[in-house]
Amino acid sequence: MNGTIAILGGGQLGRMLGLAAIPLGLRCRFLDPNPDSPARDAGELIVGAYDDEACLAELTRGASVVTYEFENVPASSARWLTDHATVRPGPVALEAAQDRLRERELFQKLGITTPRSWRVDSITDLELASGELGSTGLLKTRRMGYDGKGQQRVASPTDAQAAFEAINAQPSILDEMIPFERELSVVAVRSAEGEIASYPIAENVHAGGILRRTIAPARIDPATEREARDAAAALLEALDYVGVLALEFFDAGGKLLANEFAPRVHNTGHWTIEGAVTSQFENHIRAVAGLPLGSTAERGPTAMVNLIGDLPDARELLAMPGVHVHLYGKAPRPGRKIGHVTIELPSDPAEASAIIARVESLAGFAPAATAAR
Amino acid sequence: MNGTIAILGGGQLGRMLGLAAIPLGLRCRFLDPNPDSPARDAGELIVGAYDDEACLAELTRGASVVTYEFENVPASSARWLTDHATVRPGPVALEAAQDRLRERELFQKLGITTPRSWRVDSITDLELASGELGSTGLLKTRRMGYDGKGQQRVASPTDAQAAFEAINAQPSILDEMIPFERELSVVAVRSAEGEIASYPIAENVHAGGILRRTIAPARIDPATEREARDAAAALLEALDYVGVLALEFFDAGGKLLANEFAPRVHNTGHWTIEGAVTSQFENHIRAVAGLPLGSTAERGPTAMVNLIGDLPDARELLAMPGVHVHLYGKAPRPGRKIGHVTIELPSDPAEASAIIARVESLAGFAPAATAAR
Repeated sequence: MNGTIAILGGGQLGRMLGLAAIPLGLRCRFLDPNPDSPARDAGELIVGAYDDEACLAELTRGASVVTYEFENVPASSARWLTDHATVRPGPVALEAAQDRLRERELFQKLGITTPRSWRVDSITDLELASGELGSTGLLKTRRMGYDGKGQQRVASPTDAQAAFEAINAQPSILDEMIPFERELSVVAVRSAEGEIASYPIAENVHAGGILRRTIAPARIDPATEREARDAAAALLEALDYVGVLALEFFDAGGKLLANEFAPRVHNTGHWTIEGAVTSQFENHIRAVAGLPLGSTAERGPTAMVNLIGDLPDARELLAMPGVHVHLYGKAPRPGRKIGHVTIELPSDPAEASAIIARVESLAGFAPAATAAR
Repeated sequence: MNGTIAILGGGQLGRMLGLAAIPLGLRCRFLDPNPDSPARDAGELIVGAYDDEACLAELTRGASVVTYEFENVPASSARWLTDHATVRPGPVALEAAQDRLRERELFQKLGITTPRSWRVDSITDLELASGELGSTGLLKTRRMGYDGKGQQRVASPTDAQAAFEAINAQPSILDEMIPFERELSVVAVRSAEGEIASYPIAENVHAGGILRRTIAPARIDPATEREARDAAAALLEALDYVGVLALEFFDAGGKLLANEFAPRVHNTGHWTIEGAVTSQFENHIRAVAGLPLGSTAERGPTAMVNLIGDLPDARELLAMPGVHVHLYGKAPRPGRKIGHVTIELPSDPAEASAIIARVESLAGFAPAATAAR
């Protein structure tokens, strides 16, 4: 095997894809506007805009395949790339992931249960939807809200006008608000030949909209595990997908409600670097390079804790048995993911909780911060 | 953590050190005369001679520490480096490893049993030594035989003249020839603060002087395991060593005879990438960077098979469960190590043997080729 894999985006996901490609004899080339991109250490970095055709040409020159590490690939770039190269996963996955309405329609078509949801293109749509819902809903723009104003609470039809204006009257959906107990996710992969595999379900805790912690395998009954894996497999098939994706669910009292999917490697799959036989990064590289998939079996119970904002004392972390530190080469900044820690958990639940608590304390998370999303 | 680690040598060991450093937020810079060095994919490569002072200056500029991935560092380079930088492991380890006589003397001083051995500086020395030995011995140059003529068999004193001339009358030792059953090795590590850890003993098979296969943990009794680990620990202490070393033994009917040590990460420790909680590469980086060591515990029984000469069909290898492929980015050439395969072994011995045999067959090793060194 040899050859170059072109990757749109040079963030930490790109960095970890690059590190997984090298032992396979493959090299990654990244395009990112940031010259300090984390992926610079794990391959060749082209610094430029995602929609600059000269940069896209340089990115793909001699590459056997193109992939990406973020879903908001500009439509013009996606078109250029599909015209000039093999893009995996293909553009149909990007299109579904970039539009919440299409995503929900796809889930429903595949029999994957979602929160109740209404299409909203006007204040009138929103008033009607809120009335039908009869409880608090979340108004979400169909496309990514880059300004962080992509979501508004709507308690009743009287909130409609203010909420719709707050999201700049963008095409949206109104979602039933789910009082979920936890978030679960499944990371799954499909090879170029159609082989499908999924990792054990992960159980995730967010705070302030940012993932804080993943534990895998999730404490979950086998039927729910099967349901989540089957949903991911159906999605992979329906999209004729090649590569890794992540599908996120709310666990509402044992009932799984699919929220969204990401057409890429995913933060809730970082535990697989140490915790599974083959990491999500290696399996994405294998898939897009046309190679057979590796085993997605877990090695043992594993936790992943994100390092957000500040870098804790790495010495203290490294001195703890079974703790692995992954830094992304990013400057610390509030709210920024600058690394993660993987913990190979002891089998004793009390010991496992204690080591997670210790790592989270070093990572600067107050226990309260991890209680809710 | 951030900073640069300077590494003399850019071969596959450097490549794997570089890959281990990146997640720790560290970068490696390599010096190697070969512009196609395997390490080029895992850090910055300076192309130049090992004894070129301008290159050494460029290598070490701004680096927090210097280490190496081969033991035959020219004495002048070692002196220059120790005058200008922190070198880990220190020069005393290099000096002992570069001279078989000093190495044997060190082992004996530490109570580590070796084959019987005589110093040979002349034909007369060799005649006397061979007479005392009374059986076949191996004449070995004290310093590395770059021309591959570093060893000669000596059946009796009458062979002395021809053998000594064949090694160009170099200072040498005569070793008792050991009819060993297998070779065992222990990879061990010492941190800058003096913390010591060792990996489970590995059991190695060579053919034609090249390592073919390692199985770890070795099938070995606990007392022998303890003896090997203690010997490595004594060596680390005696050399005030910082980093990873490997100590190789002949297993002569259950009796361990130390043959040599390598002051670096080692081919018989490659299994630790997947097979141990922390790889030998990460632990070497941790040690030389002044960080705490990671756990050296095994994850489970593991085999490592070298890929020598030709690249087998990687697809077939990757399709086997628990098989990991590590390619070094080297052009195939007879007798050249171009990669290795790690196998996470099933617990059933027959299944384990079957998968090893299948990998070795794909790697082009006839079963007979692995029977003896």
